[in-house]
Amino acid sequence: MTLEISDKARAVLERPVLCDLATIRPDGSPQVNPMWFKFDGEFLWFTHTNYRQKFKNIAHDPRVAISIIDPENRYDYVEVRGVVEKIEDDPEATMYQLLSEWYDGTPVTPPDAKDRVKIAVRPTKVLTH
Amino acid sequence: MTLEISDKARAVLERPVLCDLATIRPDGSPQVNPMWFKFDGEFLWFTHTNYRQKFKNIAHDPRVAISIIDPENRYDYVEVRGVVEKIEDDPEATMYQLLSEWYDGTPVTPPDAKDRVKIAVRPTKVLTH
Repeated sequence: MTLEISDKARAVLERPVLCDLATIRPDGSPQVNPMWFKFDGEFLWFTHTNYRQKFKNIAHDPRVAISIIDPENRYDYVEVRGVVEKIEDDPEATMYQLLSEWYDGTPVTPPDAKDRVKIAVRPTKVLTH
Repeated sequence: MTLEISDKARAVLERPVLCDLATIRPDGSPQVNPMWFKFDGEFLWFTHTNYRQKFKNIAHDPRVAISIIDPENRYDYVEVRGVVEKIEDDPEATMYQLLSEWYDGTPVTPPDAKDRVKIAVRPTKVLTH
């Protein structure tokens, strides 16, 4: 089954725009913060570390929600609901490098590279508003 | 008990910047989307309607999280955790009018005024990143 993604949503997903990623804490309350992401047509990829709160959240409950404001119109946005499908060790910080280049033009290796993971979110619903 | 809010966080909270508001659906999964807000020194105020999903979410679980990107530096942000303390009918859409003027300079009465509510979130933690 192929997920339906409108051209308008795809145009936003394929740009280096910061998203807000919402996850669920183990106590059931929400957490949300800005994140880099890269959409490869199937997954939204993120870089993170293996010891911070968000890692604990998605290890506990893989359901996430993502909000991306359309840079062409700040009152339009793309809403993604999805599930974390992969969490992979990334000790060379390849995803951080890819994302830092995608957003800022230069690949950067962060000081916490050895603790880095890359996270793949499979979108289950993509809506434009 | 007064909540500690740093000057840096307060400077962001007191500007008309879109935030992302995360809530919990009744099934425990997260929802997040951009919102107008106004901080009065005690509460963050929002306008919403009484029939949409987010209303159902906060009626079910009042815990919310809010992310606000610092307009001075897109890699700095304010994280707010809080609880919905008031949901008040607002059939004249006074909060919508206040927020539309705060963000865009002109008070607007929306077509769905009769269904409007105003929502007060009491912040329980305010962090800068």
